[in-house]
Amino acid sequence: MFNFRNDYHDLCHPEIWRALLRVQDEGCEGYGYDAHSEAAREKISAALGASYPVHFVPGGTAANTLAIGFVLRPHEAVISADSGHIVGDEVGAIEAGGHKIITVETEDGKFDPARLQATLESFGNFHNVLPGMIYLSNATETGLVYTKDELRRIKEIADEHGVSVYIDGARMASALTSPVSDVELSEYPEFADIFSIGGTKNGALFGEALVFSNKRLADEFIYFQKQRSLLLAKGFTLGVQFETLFTDDLFFEIGRKANEMAFYLEEVLHEASFPPYRKVESNQVFVELPADVVQRLDAEGQFEVFAEGDPSLVRLVTTYRTTKEEIDGFGELLRSL
Amino acid sequence: MFNFRNDYHDLCHPEIWRALLRVQDEGCEGYGYDAHSEAAREKISAALGASYPVHFVPGGTAANTLAIGFVLRPHEAVISADSGHIVGDEVGAIEAGGHKIITVETEDGKFDPARLQATLESFGNFHNVLPGMIYLSNATETGLVYTKDELRRIKEIADEHGVSVYIDGARMASALTSPVSDVELSEYPEFADIFSIGGTKNGALFGEALVFSNKRLADEFIYFQKQRSLLLAKGFTLGVQFETLFTDDLFFEIGRKANEMAFYLEEVLHEASFPPYRKVESNQVFVELPADVVQRLDAEGQFEVFAEGDPSLVRLVTTYRTTKEEIDGFGELLRSL
Amino acid sequence: MFNFRNDYHDLCHPEIWRALLRVQDEGCEGYGYDAHSEAAREKISAALGASYPVHFVPGGTAANTLAIGFVLRPHEAVISADSGHIVGDEVGAIEAGGHKIITVETEDGKFDPARLQATLESFGNFHNVLPGMIYLSNATETGLVYTKDELRRIKEIADEHGVSVYIDGARMASALTSPVSDVELSEYPEFADIFSIGGTKNGALFGEALVFSNKRLADEFIYFQKQRSLLLAKGFTLGVQFETLFTDDLFFEIGRKANEMAFYLEEVLHEASFPPYRKVESNQVFVELPADVVQRLDAEGQFEVFAEGDPSLVRLVTTYRTTKEEIDGFGELLRSL
Amino acid sequence: MFNFRNDYHDLCHPEIWRALLRVQDEGCEGYGYDAHSEAAREKISAALGASYPVHFVPGGTAANTLAIGFVLRPHEAVISADSGHIVGDEVGAIEAGGHKIITVETEDGKFDPARLQATLESFGNFHNVLPGMIYLSNATETGLVYTKDELRRIKEIADEHGVSVYIDGARMASALTSPVSDVELSEYPEFADIFSIGGTKNGALFGEALVFSNKRLADEFIYFQKQRSLLLAKGFTLGVQFETLFTDDLFFEIGRKANEMAFYLEEVLHEASFPPYRKVESNQVFVELPADVVQRLDAEGQFEVFAEGDPSLVRLVTTYRTTKEEIDGFGELLRSL
Repeated sequence: MFNFRNDYHDLCHPEIWRALLRVQDEGCEGYGYDAHSEAAREKISAALGASYPVHFVPGGTAANTLAIGFVLRPHEAVISADSGHIVGDEVGAIEAGGHKIITVETEDGKFDPARLQATLESFGNFHNVLPGMIYLSNATETGLVYTKDELRRIKEIADEHGVSVYIDGARMASALTSPVSDVELSEYPEFADIFSIGGTKNGALFGEALVFSNKRLADEFIYFQKQRSLLLAKGFTLGVQFETLFTDDLFFEIGRKANEMAFYLEEVLHEASFPPYRKVESNQVFVELPADVVQRLDAEGQFEVFAEGDPSLVRLVTTYRTTKEEIDGFGELLRSL
Repeated sequence: MFNFRNDYHDLCHPEIWRALLRVQDEGCEGYGYDAHSEAAREKISAALGASYPVHFVPGGTAANTLAIGFVLRPHEAVISADSGHIVGDEVGAIEAGGHKIITVETEDGKFDPARLQATLESFGNFHNVLPGMIYLSNATETGLVYTKDELRRIKEIADEHGVSVYIDGARMASALTSPVSDVELSEYPEFADIFSIGGTKNGALFGEALVFSNKRLADEFIYFQKQRSLLLAKGFTLGVQFETLFTDDLFFEIGRKANEMAFYLEEVLHEASFPPYRKVESNQVFVELPADVVQRLDAEGQFEVFAEGDPSLVRLVTTYRTTKEEIDGFGELLRSL
Repeated sequence: MFNFRNDYHDLCHPEIWRALLRVQDEGCEGYGYDAHSEAAREKISAALGASYPVHFVPGGTAANTLAIGFVLRPHEAVISADSGHIVGDEVGAIEAGGHKIITVETEDGKFDPARLQATLESFGNFHNVLPGMIYLSNATETGLVYTKDELRRIKEIADEHGVSVYIDGARMASALTSPVSDVELSEYPEFADIFSIGGTKNGALFGEALVFSNKRLADEFIYFQKQRSLLLAKGFTLGVQFETLFTDDLFFEIGRKANEMAFYLEEVLHEASFPPYRKVESNQVFVELPADVVQRLDAEGQFEVFAEGDPSLVRLVTTYRTTKEEIDGFGELLRSL
Repeated sequence: MFNFRNDYHDLCHPEIWRALLRVQDEGCEGYGYDAHSEAAREKISAALGASYPVHFVPGGTAANTLAIGFVLRPHEAVISADSGHIVGDEVGAIEAGGHKIITVETEDGKFDPARLQATLESFGNFHNVLPGMIYLSNATETGLVYTKDELRRIKEIADEHGVSVYIDGARMASALTSPVSDVELSEYPEFADIFSIGGTKNGALFGEALVFSNKRLADEFIYFQKQRSLLLAKGFTLGVQFETLFTDDLFFEIGRKANEMAFYLEEVLHEASFPPYRKVESNQVFVELPADVVQRLDAEGQFEVFAEGDPSLVRLVTTYRTTKEEIDGFGELLRSL
């Protein structure tokens, strides 16, 4: 039995539910105007080394649609890698909000600066949209992690063209604690106008924090959030969670643990002679497996098939709850097939 | 110390968090495709006496915008009482979804059938929208409860004009357990094409169920829900909660308790010579209080001022956690001012 | 035979079609980048005494939806008199663009400053929209004309609350040439951030000019206009028309002529003992007539019934093509009934 | 002097303006409820051999956004060739209406049935949109013309997947009178659920007809059209034009003339040793020309550069007003460079 399906099949980290239970008798104010949400904002600001507007939203797609939809003008589009989460995993949420997504082809899910630049330069005629924002996620949908130089280069290109940068941090904890990463959370404001700090895939019951490092972009955001049905009445439940995640380094500890298991899984895959499809850099591990192997694994545990075929491309996700035993069992099974 | 501010200042009913904690090790599937969501749907169908499509959504505004936005065609509008939640409490969410709200003046928050009929008949010219749906909430924003005859009359009017009916059940539990009510949950499908069953204001951590009693209206709904960023990755957390609410009558028990406290509060207000502004029928109690009384109460506990003035109109909300002691203390305070 | 149905039943003023025919061999550039559009912009700027961004759009509803939709942020609403054209005559176009319309009750279609002020002050809480713009039309839908003091007061109120003012000038020519009016076109920029100059109802084949007196609001407007399918490929046809309207005072002459006929019609109505329902100030004349009179008039000519009943409220619109004979004939008929 | 810039640099065909001038004294009803619009609908139905709902709209982008936006449900997307007009020439109008465009790669602008099929089959999971419609234009943006077999195959694929087909006929007249075409207008209802008949690029002052061969899709369309600001008050001007175009075969005669000139231009290009970039099939001719040639041509006449470079890809468009002399002069110039 193994469960590598995703990083949101747990309820939440025990510290999270313990903290939630403690507020039962407090009678918190609604809509994020409570003391815990305030404390969470302060802890995040402390981690960032400066104070920025922070808003808590219920999920990852919510963070993306709110950040993008609030900032873009009606005729502006967002630029994304072709494999971006907003492209094929959100049922056209960005377009439903009125905005085109301009996709840039990538080798592996990370922007190529030259192509990004060329794409930006190909616009400017009134027959087509104007790019208004660059969207990227770190870690990417392909499990890769941006380096500081890469992020800096993207921001430079954005600045040259007067567009903003939004970093989707659904898997930020795994990205920032990756051995590949040389970026600190406190450096994010240099690289992004807005970014999300993902909770749902990192031990929270649900929820992400949206940080507006370009402060004026946050002006009146709460109106938009409520209008889009994404402001929780019991907003304090989000405050409590992020207060907890940013106490005693829990946020990063959860990410670090997931990464350790991913790198251990990488070893085990090599040992089983199924080397990963792509270098392992964070908690998503991709591997090509013969169709019959996939079928037999399917009877024993959970994972996702990304592209069916023979071989199929399979995704294995590790979390803070993944154990070495689980991976060892998986490895043995794999070698036995 | 008293807290009559709203019915969502608690974390959740203890049965709810106990049930949530139990799923920690189950590794549930995402997006509501888990066994608990399935069980919750079955329990709700059992309570309704028939099987209908049921979708779980994270909050009350979400339920409204999803139900209305999914069913209306682009040129159709929704009809609401002037005091409806969608009119002034959702930052124009319905309009943001592209639809006009046609308001009908009411005495006290409940539709007058004659006015509703006249409103429907005033449309039909291509210079203006076409009504496509009637929205009502039970209990209303004013704390009143519809009778079976009233709901039937509204549905008849809707049918005559070929529009659907959506009942916002954010406070359904309080409405249906009100001594004023002669309606059973199992009768809702006769009166509504879609209705929500409110959890957030009735002991859940968060969440509402949307029931499509007009089944064909639910077709492909999950796509729309995800597109609007309102499909939770950890959808099983909603399934667990509604499974629990519909076990051993918990849903109604929570509503019943809130009502008992409301009627007790009504008595206490009379005793304090501040008779309620409006007949008490559910867990929202309205009372006019002199400005200086409001000011002194404000130092002692929590409540909402609905219309400032002298007197001010104040709203007092009871919940399953409200105690007689809390109300007695409030009464004493009131008499002492 | 009389035709008082509306001010857009003609093809266009002869000067207009003569000018249009002249461009047949010019091979103009598309989308408003031609010399005639440029000349029209210059002539309008000359009439305004200063240079402002001017965009030509195909119709009156187009002018309204573009001006309002481009300027408002997603959570902002527009304030209109309850009888405003955008409220009940545009099939919810403003809402389809995502924005709520906040209506202010009026006696007769003109804003009451006190009510407008009170309305603006009643907002500011995140549960509801924020007002972002005041919409008014001059002349109003009720045929009345704003004075300079009234327009100034509205702009002051707007400035106090940080919202913009848009004046719908579908019937600007009739308003500005009304004997009641003390406003010059060149003063509009003092009272409005954006305003339209109506052609469709004033002798053009079709089309309105949108003037952005608050220049920064026009930034990148052409993208939005094309996105909304409201930028004509043969944009030069609009340029030619406005170039002609703003040559030799034609625009005002057409309005003046329509007004003369309206005031003559007023006299004739008095003589026929059917005094106008409302003071005549521009080219729309309202009168209450018994149901049987309406029925018999209907067989002889064209007009619109605004509110059916006995009496019915009837609207009679005069244009530059209306003749004294037409009105005399109408008067005789009326006296004979 | 030559003008090959586009097919909408003329005012309109003389028959059109003569017909328009004739209605000046008729006092037509507004919004397309006049006798000319009715006559135009009947003439189009006669040409189609059966009666279908027909609506007149002011332009080509308008036809596309209205047809697509009215028919798709919120979570549905439209499939287009990568070079489709809706993809890069309408400022994201489809997305502004809430819908994703799914692009299919093409060699030359025409759908490859196998790729279309594969694209349709790749959807169906709730994480992404659902295809709801196939969009194609005939002639294509690349100047090519679909054969009957090709259109039939696309409709079969659409039917297999339960999606509708919309054919953008902005250049229908040129397509149907092309020697390459074996399709009759009367056969369009077999291949399309909705299609437009283009006037703007075929001698009209402006305007297209939208035909709903799948009749139920037209239900209440006029509400949507007015809501999108695309229902002209002087709708009779569209009626008059289409009445004229469908009298004495004028519509096709205009297209035929444009084609003749295109094929003559093809010859002349061959003679000048600049063979067309792509087979000439309709009134758009593409040719690659050295950068210095482009520069010198630019001083002498009008055309569009589609892709700058050396060589540049240039588009030359012929119309019913193009003359042999114009083409001969262009040819001489070309040979002289």
